[in-house]
Amino acid sequence: MKVLWIFAHPEQRSLNGSLMSEGLRQLSELGHKHQVSDLYAMGWQPVVDTADFRRESRDRLFIGGEQERAYTEGKLSDDILAEQEKIDWADTLVFQFPLWWFGPPAILKGWFDRVLVQGFAFGIKDANGRTLRYGDGGLAGRRALVITSVGARESSFGPRGIHGQLEEVLFPLLHGTFWYTGMSALPPFAVYGADRLTDADYRKYAAALRERLRALETTEPLPYRYEQGSDYSDYSDYSDYDETLALRPHIAPGRTGVGIHCVTVRTPLTGGLPGRSRRSALRCGT
Amino acid sequence: MKVLWIFAHPEQRSLNGSLMSEGLRQLSELGHKHQVSDLYAMGWQPVVDTADFRRESRDRLFIGGEQERAYTEGKLSDDILAEQEKIDWADTLVFQFPLWWFGPPAILKGWFDRVLVQGFAFGIKDANGRTLRYGDGGLAGRRALVITSVGARESSFGPRGIHGQLEEVLFPLLHGTFWYTGMSALPPFAVYGADRLTDADYRKYAAALRERLRALETTEPLPYRYEQGSDYSDYSDYSDYDETLALRPHIAPGRTGVGIHCVTVRTPLTGGLPGRSRRSALRCGT
Repeated sequence: MKVLWIFAHPEQRSLNGSLMSEGLRQLSELGHKHQVSDLYAMGWQPVVDTADFRRESRDRLFIGGEQERAYTEGKLSDDILAEQEKIDWADTLVFQFPLWWFGPPAILKGWFDRVLVQGFAFGIKDANGRTLRYGDGGLAGRRALVITSVGARESSFGPRGIHGQLEEVLFPLLHGTFWYTGMSALPPFAVYGADRLTDADYRKYAAALRERLRALETTEPLPYRYEQGSDYSDYSDYSDYDETLALRPHIAPGRTGVGIHCVTVRTPLTGGLPGRSRRSALRCGT
Repeated sequence: MKVLWIFAHPEQRSLNGSLMSEGLRQLSELGHKHQVSDLYAMGWQPVVDTADFRRESRDRLFIGGEQERAYTEGKLSDDILAEQEKIDWADTLVFQFPLWWFGPPAILKGWFDRVLVQGFAFGIKDANGRTLRYGDGGLAGRRALVITSVGARESSFGPRGIHGQLEEVLFPLLHGTFWYTGMSALPPFAVYGADRLTDADYRKYAAALRERLRALETTEPLPYRYEQGSDYSDYSDYSDYDETLALRPHIAPGRTGVGIHCVTVRTPLTGGLPGRSRRSALRCGT
Protein backbone atom coordinates (compact mmCIF):
# COMPACT_ATOMS: atom_id res chain seq x y z
CA MET A 1 0.00 0.00 0.00
CA LYS A 2 0.97 3.61 -0.47
CA VAL A 3 0.05 5.69 2.53
CA LEU A 4 0.07 9.48 2.78
CA TRP A 5 0.20 10.40 6.49
CA ILE A 6 -0.94 13.96 7.20
CA PHE A 7 0.12 15.06 10.68
CA ALA A 8 -1.18 18.20 12.39
CA HIS A 9 0.44 18.62 15.80
CA PRO A 10 3.03 21.26 16.76
CA GLU A 11 4.98 19.00 19.13
CA GLN A 12 6.88 15.93 17.92
CA ARG A 13 7.42 14.82 21.52
CA SER A 14 3.65 14.62 22.05
CA LEU A 15 1.45 11.58 22.38
CA ASN A 16 0.54 12.14 18.75
CA GLY A 17 4.17 12.33 17.72
CA SER A 18 4.92 9.04 19.47
CA LEU A 19 1.93 7.34 17.89
CA MET A 20 2.96 8.56 14.46
CA SER A 21 6.47 7.09 14.88
CA GLU A 22 4.89 3.86 16.04
CA GLY A 23 2.54 3.88 13.07
CA LEU A 24 5.15 4.65 10.43
CA ARG A 25 7.41 1.90 11.80
CA GLN A 26 4.51 -0.52 11.56
CA LEU A 27 3.76 0.49 7.97
CA SER A 28 7.39 -0.15 7.02
CA GLU A 29 7.37 -3.53 8.73
CA LEU A 30 4.27 -4.45 6.75
CA GLY A 31 6.06 -3.52 3.53
CA HIS A 32 3.85 -0.50 2.84
CA LYS A 33 5.32 2.68 1.41
CA HIS A 34 4.57 6.00 3.04
CA GLN A 35 5.00 9.73 2.64
CA VAL A 36 4.43 12.21 5.46
CA SER A 37 2.99 15.71 5.33
CA ASP A 38 3.95 17.06 8.74
CA LEU A 39 2.02 20.31 8.46
CA TYR A 40 3.64 22.18 11.36
CA ALA A 41 7.15 21.08 10.34
CA MET A 42 6.43 22.14 6.74
CA GLY A 43 5.18 25.55 7.86
CA TRP A 44 1.97 24.81 5.98
CA GLN A 45 -0.01 27.98 5.23
CA PRO A 46 -3.69 27.14 5.80
CA VAL A 47 -5.47 30.28 4.56
CA VAL A 48 -7.12 30.27 1.11
CA ASP A 49 -5.66 33.32 -0.55
CA THR A 50 -5.30 34.84 -4.01
CA ALA A 51 -1.65 33.72 -4.02
CA ASP A 52 -3.01 30.14 -4.29
CA PHE A 53 -4.15 30.84 -7.85
CA ARG A 54 -1.30 33.02 -9.18
CA ARG A 55 -4.09 35.44 -9.95
CA GLU A 56 -3.44 38.86 -11.40
CA SER A 57 -6.98 40.08 -12.01
CA ARG A 58 -8.42 42.54 -9.53
CA ASP A 59 -11.99 41.61 -10.42
CA ARG A 60 -14.29 40.21 -7.80
CA LEU A 61 -12.93 36.88 -6.57
CA PHE A 62 -15.07 33.73 -6.77
CA ILE A 63 -13.11 31.15 -4.79
CA GLY A 64 -14.51 27.88 -6.16
CA GLY A 65 -14.28 28.88 -9.80
CA GLU A 66 -10.84 30.41 -9.31
CA GLN A 67 -9.54 27.24 -7.66
CA GLU A 68 -10.86 25.13 -10.52
CA ARG A 69 -9.45 27.45 -13.18
CA ALA A 70 -6.01 27.47 -11.55
CA TYR A 71 -6.07 23.67 -11.19
CA THR A 72 -7.06 23.16 -14.82
CA GLU A 73 -4.43 25.59 -16.07
CA GLY A 74 -1.73 24.14 -13.80
CA LYS A 75 -1.43 27.44 -11.96
CA LEU A 76 -2.05 26.43 -8.36
CA SER A 77 0.78 27.40 -6.03
CA ASP A 78 3.61 24.92 -5.59
CA ASP A 79 2.72 23.92 -2.03
CA ILE A 80 -0.79 22.91 -3.14
CA LEU A 81 0.50 21.04 -6.20
CA ALA A 82 2.95 19.08 -4.03
CA GLU A 83 0.10 17.86 -1.81
CA GLN A 84 -2.05 16.92 -4.80
CA GLU A 85 0.84 14.89 -6.21
CA LYS A 86 1.14 12.99 -2.94
CA ILE A 87 -2.61 12.28 -3.02
CA ASP A 88 -2.33 11.07 -6.62
CA TRP A 89 0.43 8.69 -5.52
CA ALA A 90 -1.40 7.36 -2.43
CA ASP A 91 -4.10 4.74 -2.09
CA THR A 92 -4.63 5.51 1.61
CA LEU A 93 -4.70 8.79 3.49
CA VAL A 94 -4.17 8.98 7.25
CA PHE A 95 -5.10 12.20 9.04
CA GLN A 96 -3.69 12.49 12.53
CA PHE A 97 -4.61 15.41 14.77
CA PRO A 98 -5.65 16.38 18.28
CA LEU A 99 -9.39 17.15 18.36
CA TRP A 100 -9.66 20.91 18.93
CA TRP A 101 -13.14 22.38 19.26
CA PHE A 102 -14.50 19.08 18.02
CA GLY A 103 -12.68 19.24 14.71
CA PRO A 104 -9.27 19.39 13.07
CA PRO A 105 -6.83 22.18 14.02
CA ALA A 106 -6.87 25.16 11.64
CA ILE A 107 -3.63 24.07 9.98
CA LEU A 108 -5.34 20.87 8.83
CA LYS A 109 -8.69 22.48 8.03
CA GLY A 110 -6.75 24.73 5.67
CA TRP A 111 -5.16 21.71 4.01
CA PHE A 112 -8.66 20.61 2.97
CA ASP A 113 -9.70 24.15 2.02
CA ARG A 114 -6.66 24.69 -0.23
CA VAL A 115 -5.76 21.24 -1.60
CA LEU A 116 -9.13 19.58 -2.31
CA VAL A 117 -10.16 21.98 -5.06
CA GLN A 118 -12.98 21.66 -7.55
CA GLY A 119 -11.88 19.73 -10.64
CA PHE A 120 -9.37 17.74 -8.61
CA ALA A 121 -11.30 16.31 -5.66
CA PHE A 122 -14.91 17.01 -6.63
CA GLY A 123 -17.09 18.68 -9.22
CA ILE A 124 -16.27 16.00 -11.81
CA LYS A 125 -19.12 14.80 -14.01
CA ASP A 126 -19.86 11.38 -15.44
CA ALA A 127 -20.86 10.67 -19.06
CA ASN A 128 -24.48 11.53 -18.24
CA GLY A 129 -23.54 14.92 -16.88
CA ARG A 130 -24.17 13.94 -13.28
CA THR A 131 -21.70 15.26 -10.75
CA LEU A 132 -19.80 12.50 -8.97
CA ARG A 133 -20.07 12.86 -5.21
CA TYR A 134 -20.57 10.78 -2.08
CA GLY A 135 -18.93 7.47 -2.89
CA ASP A 136 -17.50 8.69 -6.16
CA GLY A 137 -15.42 11.68 -7.20
CA GLY A 138 -11.86 12.78 -7.74
CA LEU A 139 -10.42 10.75 -4.87
CA ALA A 140 -12.46 7.58 -5.46
CA GLY A 141 -10.82 4.26 -4.71
CA ARG A 142 -8.85 5.61 -1.77
CA ARG A 143 -9.31 4.90 1.93
CA ALA A 144 -9.06 7.54 4.62
CA LEU A 145 -8.38 7.00 8.32
CA VAL A 146 -8.66 9.54 11.12
CA ILE A 147 -6.39 9.14 14.14
CA THR A 148 -7.33 11.63 16.82
CA SER A 149 -6.57 12.35 20.45
CA VAL A 150 -9.26 13.57 22.78
CA GLY A 151 -9.01 14.84 26.34
CA ALA A 152 -12.43 13.53 27.31
CA ARG A 153 -13.35 10.04 28.41
CA GLU A 154 -14.80 7.56 25.92
CA SER A 155 -18.29 7.43 27.44
CA SER A 156 -18.77 11.13 26.77
CA PHE A 157 -18.30 10.48 23.03
CA GLY A 158 -20.54 7.41 22.95
CA PRO A 159 -23.97 7.13 21.32
CA ARG A 160 -25.55 9.07 24.21
CA GLY A 161 -22.44 10.92 25.40
CA ILE A 162 -22.62 14.65 26.10
CA HIS A 163 -20.17 15.61 23.35
CA GLY A 164 -22.05 13.66 20.68
CA GLN A 165 -21.05 10.31 19.24
CA LEU A 166 -17.58 10.70 17.75
CA GLU A 167 -18.57 9.52 14.27
CA GLU A 168 -21.38 12.08 14.17
CA VAL A 169 -19.24 14.90 15.52
CA LEU A 170 -16.75 14.06 12.74
CA PHE A 171 -19.53 13.87 10.11
CA PRO A 172 -18.26 16.98 8.25
CA LEU A 173 -14.93 15.21 7.79
CA LEU A 174 -15.90 11.55 7.40
CA HIS A 175 -19.00 12.04 5.26
CA GLY A 176 -18.74 15.62 4.02
CA THR A 177 -15.07 15.46 2.99
CA PHE A 178 -13.86 11.85 2.64
CA TRP A 179 -17.04 10.26 1.29
CA TYR A 180 -17.99 13.41 -0.67
CA THR A 181 -14.76 13.17 -2.67
CA GLY A 182 -15.15 9.42 -3.16
CA MET A 183 -12.90 8.12 -0.38
CA SER A 184 -14.03 5.32 1.90
CA ALA A 185 -14.00 6.51 5.49
CA LEU A 186 -12.55 3.95 7.87
CA PRO A 187 -13.82 3.91 11.46
CA PRO A 188 -11.83 6.62 13.26
CA PHE A 189 -9.14 5.62 15.74
CA ALA A 190 -9.48 7.72 18.88
CA VAL A 191 -7.28 7.99 21.94
CA TYR A 192 -9.45 9.07 24.85
CA GLY A 193 -8.30 10.66 28.11
CA ALA A 194 -5.24 11.76 26.17
CA ASP A 195 -4.13 14.20 28.87
CA ARG A 196 -3.97 11.50 31.51
CA LEU A 197 -2.54 8.41 29.82
CA THR A 198 -0.39 6.13 31.91
CA ASP A 199 2.47 4.22 30.31
CA ALA A 200 0.26 1.15 30.32
CA ASP A 201 -2.55 3.06 28.60
CA TYR A 202 -0.09 4.25 25.98
CA ARG A 203 1.14 0.73 25.27
CA LYS A 204 -2.47 -0.43 24.90
CA TYR A 205 -3.26 2.33 22.40
CA ALA A 206 0.00 1.79 20.50
CA ALA A 207 -0.80 -1.92 20.15
CA ALA A 208 -4.34 -1.12 19.02
CA LEU A 209 -3.00 1.31 16.43
CA ARG A 210 -0.56 -1.29 15.07
CA GLU A 211 -3.47 -3.70 14.77
CA ARG A 212 -5.58 -1.10 12.93
CA LEU A 213 -2.73 -0.45 10.50
CA ARG A 214 -2.24 -4.17 9.96
CA ALA A 215 -5.91 -4.30 8.87
CA LEU A 216 -5.74 -1.13 6.78
CA GLU A 217 -6.57 -2.89 3.54
CA THR A 218 -9.32 -5.10 4.93
CA THR A 219 -11.14 -2.96 7.49
CA GLU A 220 -14.74 -2.43 6.51
CA PRO A 221 -15.37 1.29 5.86
CA LEU A 222 -18.26 3.19 7.41
CA PRO A 223 -21.31 2.21 5.35
CA TYR A 224 -22.39 5.59 4.04
CA ARG A 225 -24.94 5.68 1.24
CA TYR A 226 -23.97 6.34 -2.38
CA GLU A 227 -25.44 9.46 -3.95
CA GLN A 228 -25.76 7.60 -7.22
CA GLY A 229 -27.47 4.62 -5.65
CA SER A 230 -31.22 4.73 -5.41
CA ASP A 231 -31.55 6.12 -1.89
CA TYR A 232 -31.69 9.84 -2.64
CA SER A 233 -34.36 11.67 -4.59
CA ASP A 234 -33.44 13.27 -7.90
CA TYR A 235 -35.18 14.93 -10.82
CA SER A 236 -37.03 11.72 -11.63
CA ASP A 237 -38.94 12.12 -8.35
CA TYR A 238 -39.63 15.80 -8.33
CA SER A 239 -40.02 18.49 -10.88
CA ASP A 240 -39.17 20.96 -8.14
CA TYR A 241 -35.43 21.39 -7.88
CA ASP A 242 -35.83 22.16 -4.20
CA GLU A 243 -37.21 18.75 -3.35
CA THR A 244 -34.20 16.80 -4.56
CA LEU A 245 -31.21 15.28 -2.79
CA ALA A 246 -33.08 14.06 0.26
CA LEU A 247 -33.48 10.42 1.33
CA ARG A 248 -36.45 8.88 -0.42
CA PRO A 249 -39.43 8.36 1.90
CA HIS A 250 -39.15 4.54 1.98
CA ILE A 251 -35.49 4.69 3.11
CA ALA A 252 -35.14 4.88 6.91
CA PRO A 253 -38.81 5.89 6.96
CA GLY A 254 -39.77 8.57 9.44
CA ARG A 255 -36.20 8.96 10.68
CA THR A 256 -34.00 12.03 10.61
CA GLY A 257 -30.53 12.99 11.84
CA VAL A 258 -27.13 12.47 10.25
CA GLY A 259 -27.15 8.79 11.23
CA ILE A 260 -29.68 8.03 8.48
CA HIS A 261 -26.94 8.45 5.88
CA CYS A 262 -25.50 5.10 6.97
CA VAL A 263 -26.73 1.76 5.73
CA THR A 264 -27.23 -0.13 8.94
CA VAL A 265 -28.52 -3.28 10.48
CA ARG A 266 -31.05 -2.75 13.23
CA THR A 267 -31.12 -4.89 16.33
CA PRO A 268 -33.20 -4.55 19.49
CA LEU A 269 -31.87 -2.00 21.93
CA THR A 270 -31.22 -3.52 25.32
CA GLY A 271 -33.09 -1.61 27.98
CA GLY A 272 -34.88 0.64 25.54
CA LEU A 273 -38.59 1.05 25.06
CA PRO A 274 -40.47 -1.80 23.33
CA GLY A 275 -40.14 -1.54 19.61
CA ARG A 276 -37.05 0.63 19.76
CA SER A 277 -33.94 -0.58 18.04
CA ARG A 278 -30.44 0.49 17.40
CA ARG A 279 -27.86 -0.07 14.73
CA SER A 280 -25.39 -2.64 15.86
CA ALA A 281 -23.26 -2.81 12.77
CA LEU A 282 -20.54 -0.29 12.15
CA ARG A 283 -21.13 2.91 14.01
CA CYS A 284 -21.21 5.77 11.56
CA GLY A 285 -24.24 7.30 13.16
CA THR A 286 -27.11 6.29 15.33
CA MET B 1 -26.63 45.52 22.41
CA LYS B 2 -22.93 45.17 21.83
CA VAL B 3 -22.20 42.94 18.87
CA LEU B 4 -18.83 41.51 17.85
CA TRP B 5 -19.05 40.54 14.17
CA ILE B 6 -16.39 38.05 13.10
CA PHE B 7 -16.09 37.90 9.32
CA ALA B 8 -14.13 35.22 7.45
CA HIS B 9 -14.27 35.82 3.70
CA PRO B 10 -11.38 37.00 1.53
CA GLU B 11 -13.51 39.14 -0.81
CA GLN B 12 -15.36 42.22 0.41
CA ARG B 13 -17.28 42.40 -2.87
CA SER B 14 -18.76 38.94 -2.25
CA LEU B 15 -22.29 38.00 -1.30
CA ASN B 16 -20.98 37.71 2.26
CA GLY B 17 -19.40 41.16 2.10
CA SER B 18 -22.68 42.68 0.94
CA LEU B 19 -24.66 40.91 3.64
CA MET B 20 -22.23 42.10 6.30
CA SER B 21 -22.62 45.72 5.17
CA GLU B 22 -26.37 45.25 5.21
CA GLY B 23 -26.20 43.72 8.67
CA LEU B 24 -23.93 46.35 10.21
CA ARG B 25 -26.14 49.12 8.83
CA GLN B 26 -29.15 47.45 10.40
CA LEU B 27 -27.40 47.13 13.77
CA SER B 28 -26.60 50.85 13.72
CA GLU B 29 -30.18 51.73 12.83
CA LEU B 30 -31.36 49.65 15.76
CA GLY B 31 -29.05 51.60 18.06
CA HIS B 32 -26.76 48.63 18.74
CA LYS B 33 -23.01 49.09 19.00
CA HIS B 34 -20.70 46.83 17.01
CA GLN B 35 -17.07 45.92 16.50
CA VAL B 36 -15.84 43.91 13.51
CA SER B 37 -13.06 41.34 13.34
CA ASP B 38 -12.54 41.03 9.60
CA LEU B 39 -10.09 38.13 9.76
CA TYR B 40 -8.76 38.32 6.20
CA ALA B 41 -8.41 42.11 6.35
CA MET B 42 -6.60 41.80 9.70
CA GLY B 43 -4.22 39.18 8.31
CA TRP B 44 -5.30 36.94 11.17
CA GLN B 45 -2.82 34.14 11.80
CA PRO B 46 -4.84 30.98 12.52
CA VAL B 47 -2.17 28.47 13.56
CA VAL B 48 -1.67 27.68 17.26
CA ASP B 49 2.04 28.22 17.76
CA THR B 50 4.55 28.69 20.58
CA ALA B 51 4.63 32.42 19.75
CA ASP B 52 1.06 32.56 21.12
CA PHE B 53 2.37 32.00 24.63
CA ARG B 54 5.62 34.04 24.60
CA ARG B 55 7.19 30.78 25.64
CA GLU B 56 10.90 30.38 26.09
CA SER B 57 11.11 26.87 27.45
CA ARG B 58 12.18 24.14 25.06
CA ASP B 59 10.52 21.44 27.13
CA ARG B 60 7.77 19.32 25.68
CA LEU B 61 4.81 21.55 24.80
CA PHE B 62 1.37 20.82 26.26
CA ILE B 63 -0.96 23.14 24.36
CA GLY B 64 -3.93 23.35 26.72
CA GLY B 65 -1.88 23.94 29.83
CA GLU B 66 0.40 26.38 28.07
CA GLN B 67 -2.56 28.41 26.78
CA GLU B 68 -4.04 28.57 30.28
CA ARG B 69 -0.71 29.53 31.87
CA ALA B 70 -0.14 32.31 29.34
CA TYR B 71 -3.71 33.57 29.80
CA THR B 72 -3.41 33.62 33.58
CA GLU B 73 -0.03 35.36 33.48
CA GLY B 74 -1.21 37.88 30.86
CA LYS B 75 1.33 36.56 28.38
CA LEU B 76 -0.84 35.63 25.41
CA SER B 77 0.21 37.36 22.20
CA ASP B 78 -1.31 40.76 21.47
CA ASP B 79 -3.54 39.60 18.62
CA ILE B 80 -5.19 37.02 20.90
CA LEU B 81 -5.59 39.50 23.76
CA ALA B 82 -7.27 41.99 21.42
CA GLU B 83 -9.88 39.40 20.43
CA GLN B 84 -10.50 38.42 24.05
CA GLU B 85 -11.05 42.08 24.94
CA LYS B 86 -13.65 42.37 22.18
CA ILE B 87 -15.41 39.26 23.50
CA ASP B 88 -15.36 40.70 27.03
CA TRP B 89 -17.01 43.84 25.66
CA ALA B 90 -19.68 42.04 23.58
CA ASP B 91 -22.96 40.50 24.60
CA THR B 92 -23.53 38.97 21.16
CA LEU B 93 -21.11 37.30 18.73
CA VAL B 94 -21.89 36.94 15.04
CA PHE B 95 -19.77 34.54 12.98
CA GLN B 96 -20.12 35.01 9.23
CA PHE B 97 -18.40 32.64 6.82
CA PRO B 98 -18.87 30.62 3.64
CA LEU B 99 -19.33 26.93 4.52
CA TRP B 100 -16.17 25.18 3.30
CA TRP B 101 -15.97 21.42 3.72
CA PHE B 102 -19.02 21.65 5.95
CA GLY B 103 -17.36 23.91 8.46
CA PRO B 104 -15.70 27.27 8.96
CA PRO B 105 -12.72 28.28 6.79
CA ALA B 106 -9.32 27.63 8.41
CA ILE B 107 -8.84 31.31 9.23
CA LEU B 108 -11.93 31.19 11.45
CA LYS B 109 -11.24 27.72 12.87
CA GLY B 110 -7.92 29.12 14.04
CA TRP B 111 -9.68 32.01 15.73
CA PHE B 112 -11.44 29.47 17.96
CA ASP B 113 -8.26 27.43 18.43
CA ARG B 114 -6.19 30.43 19.54
CA VAL B 115 -8.65 32.79 21.26
CA LEU B 116 -10.94 30.51 23.26
CA VAL B 117 -8.29 29.24 25.63
CA GLN B 118 -8.69 27.33 28.85
CA GLY B 119 -9.21 29.66 31.80
CA PHE B 120 -10.85 32.26 29.58
CA ALA B 121 -13.60 30.44 27.69
CA PHE B 122 -13.77 27.11 29.51
CA GLY B 123 -12.15 25.06 32.24
CA ILE B 124 -13.57 27.31 34.97
CA LYS B 125 -14.88 25.62 38.10
CA ASP B 126 -17.80 26.51 40.35
CA ALA B 127 -17.68 26.62 44.17
CA ASN B 128 -18.23 22.85 44.30
CA GLY B 129 -15.27 22.14 42.05
CA ARG B 130 -17.41 21.20 39.06
CA THR B 131 -16.21 22.44 35.71
CA LEU B 132 -18.65 24.82 34.06
CA ARG B 133 -19.51 23.68 30.55
CA TYR B 134 -22.48 23.35 28.20
CA GLY B 135 -24.74 26.22 29.13
CA ASP B 136 -22.26 27.73 31.53
CA GLY B 137 -18.60 28.72 31.30
CA GLY B 138 -16.35 31.65 30.54
CA LEU B 139 -18.60 33.10 27.84
CA ALA B 140 -21.92 32.55 29.63
CA GLY B 141 -24.67 35.11 29.14
CA ARG B 142 -23.72 35.81 25.53
CA ARG B 143 -25.58 34.88 22.35
CA ALA B 144 -23.90 33.57 19.21
CA LEU B 145 -25.27 33.64 15.68
CA VAL B 146 -23.87 31.87 12.62
CA ILE B 147 -24.44 33.46 9.22
CA THR B 148 -23.26 31.14 6.48
CA SER B 149 -23.43 30.83 2.72
CA VAL B 150 -23.84 27.45 1.09
CA GLY B 151 -23.64 26.50 -2.57
CA ALA B 152 -26.15 23.67 -2.21
CA ARG B 153 -29.93 23.90 -2.24
CA GLU B 154 -31.88 24.02 1.01
CA SER B 155 -33.50 20.58 0.66
CA SER B 156 -30.08 18.92 0.66
CA PHE B 157 -29.44 20.36 4.15
CA GLY B 158 -32.88 19.48 5.51
CA PRO B 159 -33.69 16.82 8.11
CA ARG B 160 -33.26 14.06 5.48
CA GLY B 161 -30.99 15.95 3.07
CA ILE B 162 -27.88 14.26 1.70
CA HIS B 163 -25.45 16.70 3.35
CA GLY B 164 -27.02 16.27 6.78
CA GLN B 165 -29.32 18.70 8.53
CA LEU B 166 -27.47 21.99 8.82
CA GLU B 167 -27.82 22.27 12.61
CA GLU B 168 -26.32 18.78 13.01
CA VAL B 169 -23.50 19.42 10.53
CA LEU B 170 -22.69 22.54 12.57
CA PHE B 171 -22.93 20.63 15.88
CA PRO B 172 -19.18 21.03 16.61
CA LEU B 173 -19.65 24.79 16.42
CA LEU B 174 -23.16 25.33 17.82
CA HIS B 175 -23.01 22.79 20.62
CA GLY B 176 -19.32 21.97 20.96
CA THR B 177 -18.04 25.55 20.87
CA PHE B 178 -20.85 28.05 21.58
CA TRP B 179 -22.85 26.05 24.11
CA TYR B 180 -19.72 24.43 25.58
CA THR B 181 -18.38 27.86 26.56
CA GLY B 182 -21.76 28.97 27.89
CA MET B 183 -23.06 30.93 24.90
CA SER B 184 -26.62 30.46 23.68
CA ALA B 185 -26.57 29.31 20.07
CA LEU B 186 -29.16 31.08 17.95
CA PRO B 187 -30.64 29.19 14.98
CA PRO B 188 -28.11 29.63 12.15
CA PHE B 189 -28.93 31.94 9.26
CA ALA B 190 -28.05 30.21 5.99
CA VAL B 191 -28.04 31.50 2.42
CA TYR B 192 -28.57 28.52 0.12
CA GLY B 193 -27.73 28.32 -3.58
CA ALA B 194 -25.24 31.08 -2.88
CA ASP B 195 -23.50 30.63 -6.24
CA ARG B 196 -26.69 31.24 -8.20
CA LEU B 197 -28.55 34.02 -6.40
CA THR B 198 -30.57 36.40 -8.53
CA ASP B 199 -30.97 40.02 -7.48
CA ALA B 200 -34.44 39.15 -6.23
CA ASP B 201 -33.02 36.24 -4.17
CA TYR B 202 -30.43 38.56 -2.69
CA ARG B 203 -33.05 41.12 -1.68
CA LYS B 204 -35.09 38.38 -0.04
CA TYR B 205 -32.10 37.13 1.99
CA ALA B 206 -31.04 40.67 2.92
CA ALA B 207 -34.54 41.39 4.23
CA ALA B 208 -34.56 38.12 6.16
CA LEU B 209 -31.18 38.96 7.70
CA ARG B 210 -32.40 42.40 8.76
CA GLU B 211 -35.38 40.73 10.40
CA ARG B 212 -33.12 38.23 12.22
CA LEU B 213 -30.96 41.07 13.51
CA ARG B 214 -34.03 42.99 14.64
CA ALA B 215 -34.93 39.94 16.76
CA LEU B 216 -31.39 39.34 18.01
CA GLU B 217 -32.30 39.92 21.64
CA THR B 218 -35.54 37.96 21.60
CA THR B 219 -34.91 34.98 19.30
CA GLU B 220 -35.20 31.73 21.17
CA PRO B 221 -31.84 29.92 21.20
CA LEU B 222 -31.44 26.28 20.21
CA PRO B 223 -32.65 24.31 23.22
CA TYR B 224 -29.51 22.35 24.08
CA ARG B 225 -29.38 20.58 27.41
CA TYR B 226 -27.44 21.97 30.39
CA GLU B 227 -24.59 19.80 31.65
CA GLN B 228 -25.41 20.87 35.19
CA GLY B 229 -29.09 20.10 34.83
CA SER B 230 -30.19 16.59 35.69
CA ASP B 231 -30.08 15.07 32.20
CA TYR B 232 -26.52 13.72 32.20
CA SER B 233 -25.10 11.02 34.42
CA ASP B 234 -22.41 11.91 36.93
CA TYR B 235 -20.60 10.29 39.82
CA SER B 236 -23.83 9.97 41.77
CA ASP B 237 -25.02 7.43 39.17
CA TYR B 238 -21.89 5.40 38.60
CA SER B 239 -18.84 4.61 40.55
CA ASP B 240 -17.13 3.93 37.24
CA TYR B 241 -15.68 7.11 35.81
CA ASP B 242 -16.16 5.69 32.34
CA GLU B 243 -19.94 5.56 32.64
CA THR B 244 -20.42 9.25 33.30
CA LEU B 245 -21.41 12.17 31.07
CA ALA B 246 -23.99 10.30 29.02
CA LEU B 247 -27.69 11.07 28.90
CA ARG B 248 -29.50 9.30 31.73
CA PRO B 249 -31.56 6.34 30.56
CA HIS B 250 -34.95 7.99 31.15
CA ILE B 251 -34.02 11.02 29.01
CA ALA B 252 -34.87 10.51 25.33
CA PRO B 253 -35.08 6.80 26.15
CA GLY B 254 -33.69 4.43 23.56
CA ARG B 255 -32.60 7.25 21.27
CA THR B 256 -29.14 8.10 20.06
CA GLY B 257 -27.57 10.64 17.69
CA VAL B 258 -26.54 14.24 18.27
CA GLY B 259 -30.17 15.38 18.12
CA ILE B 260 -30.82 13.95 21.59
CA HIS B 261 -28.85 16.80 23.12
CA CYS B 262 -31.77 19.12 22.37
CA VAL B 263 -34.80 19.49 24.57
CA THR B 264 -37.63 19.10 22.10
CA VAL B 265 -41.33 18.77 21.68
CA ARG B 266 -42.40 15.71 19.75
CA THR B 267 -45.30 15.78 17.32
CA PRO B 268 -46.59 13.12 14.93
CA LEU B 269 -44.60 12.88 11.72
CA THR B 270 -46.79 13.42 8.69
CA GLY B 271 -46.49 10.51 6.33
CA GLY B 272 -44.26 8.51 8.65
CA LEU B 273 -44.83 5.07 10.04
CA PRO B 274 -47.41 4.76 12.84
CA GLY B 275 -45.92 5.68 16.15
CA ARG B 276 -43.11 7.65 14.63
CA SER B 277 -42.74 11.25 15.59
CA ARG B 278 -40.53 14.17 14.93
CA ARG B 279 -39.46 17.23 16.83
CA SER B 280 -41.38 20.23 15.62
CA ALA B 281 -39.95 22.83 17.94
CA LEU B 282 -36.67 24.54 17.20
CA ARG B 283 -34.48 22.47 14.97
CA CYS B 284 -31.19 21.82 16.68
CA GLY B 285 -31.18 18.17 15.78
CA THR B 286 -33.66 15.53 14.81
